[in-house]
Amino acid sequence: MSTATALQAKIINGVNVSALSDTIAAVKGDPTIAKFNFRATNKWMGGDRNRSTIGQFSGALQEHRVDGKTFDFENGEHPVLLGADRAPNPVEWLLHALIGCMTTTTAYHAAARNIAVEAIDSQIEGDLDLRGFLGISPEVRNGYNAIRVRMRVKTKADTAAIKALTAMSPVFDTVSRSVPVTVDIETY
Amino acid sequence: MSTATALQAKIINGVNVSALSDTIAAVKGDPTIAKFNFRATNKWMGGDRNRSTIGQFSGALQEHRVDGKTFDFENGEHPVLLGADRAPNPVEWLLHALIGCMTTTTAYHAAARNIAVEAIDSQIEGDLDLRGFLGISPEVRNGYNAIRVRMRVKTKADTAAIKALTAMSPVFDTVSRSVPVTVDIETY
Repeated sequence: MSTATALQAKIINGVNVSALSDTIAAVKGDPTIAKFNFRATNKWMGGDRNRSTIGQFSGALQEHRVDGKTFDFENGEHPVLLGADRAPNPVEWLLHALIGCMTTTTAYHAAARNIAVEAIDSQIEGDLDLRGFLGISPEVRNGYNAIRVRMRVKTKADTAAIKALTAMSPVFDTVSRSVPVTVDIETY
Repeated sequence: MSTATALQAKIINGVNVSALSDTIAAVKGDPTIAKFNFRATNKWMGGDRNRSTIGQFSGALQEHRVDGKTFDFENGEHPVLLGADRAPNPVEWLLHALIGCMTTTTAYHAAARNIAVEAIDSQIEGDLDLRGFLGISPEVRNGYNAIRVRMRVKTKADTAAIKALTAMSPVFDTVSRSVPVTVDIETY
């Protein structure tokens, strides 16, 4: 998507701002470039275990990772939730996705605004009441009822400016504003 | 949380249903047992790279993984999104969390209902319009605008029954119904 080479590129926060500007210009010229479709497959391995494969995706009018490259990761559950703790559980993975997205977004958007960031360290936690999942209390939701993020950022920008950047995060937007999830089941 | 031993336990779908029943009984007796708090820390490594550490959590009136055991995973971005594709990106990790949670939930809740499940294979995809993240179109959201799940389940139960089980998933609940995310920023 970029015509800027490494030699001539402007790099801020490790982000190629020249390429980012090229991307914005390209998307303004043709909004269909902005349409992305991300995918995963998953296979249950019994009990608490399942494995996702993340590979090909589309965006910028192309398919990517078409060489067969994949990332493969398991979900598990801790013994207190009747598993063997071979991998994080899904609600822990969600925290990884959210805090990672807020961090990347801060680095990228700060770069686009010419704000140097030297370090980002953060903590995230979520409260979950198992009475929802166990079907004991209909008024208790099954998922997280609250998530809290604390982020320390080494930068000359003020806290309000940085907080506004974190809120641009796609995963932050997805979980804090909800997304429709369509579910199609086939049994055999 | 369980008094059932492996020898006497009833196992369905690889899930210890005796222990699950014990858990439900315990939570009914003392709802504070149901309160869980999951956590991660994250460190930015420059550009598209950051690393989460998932360790200790609380639940069932105890702290768990107190021996220092952690799971460590990176976030990355593909070159089309100005990274080096060292790891899935955060919106891909979200799909892993969601499909894994729906799978585990189906296996556990089927077991609790005495429904045998022999296989679960699924596909998940999400649509994202980068015009939101790039700040080009205020009316375009930054996160996913739609997520679709297709799940094939080998079981004698009907599709409606299985679909109802998938909807019990904590991550499904979190992303399809939204959760408040509090963000506290410190700069230095």
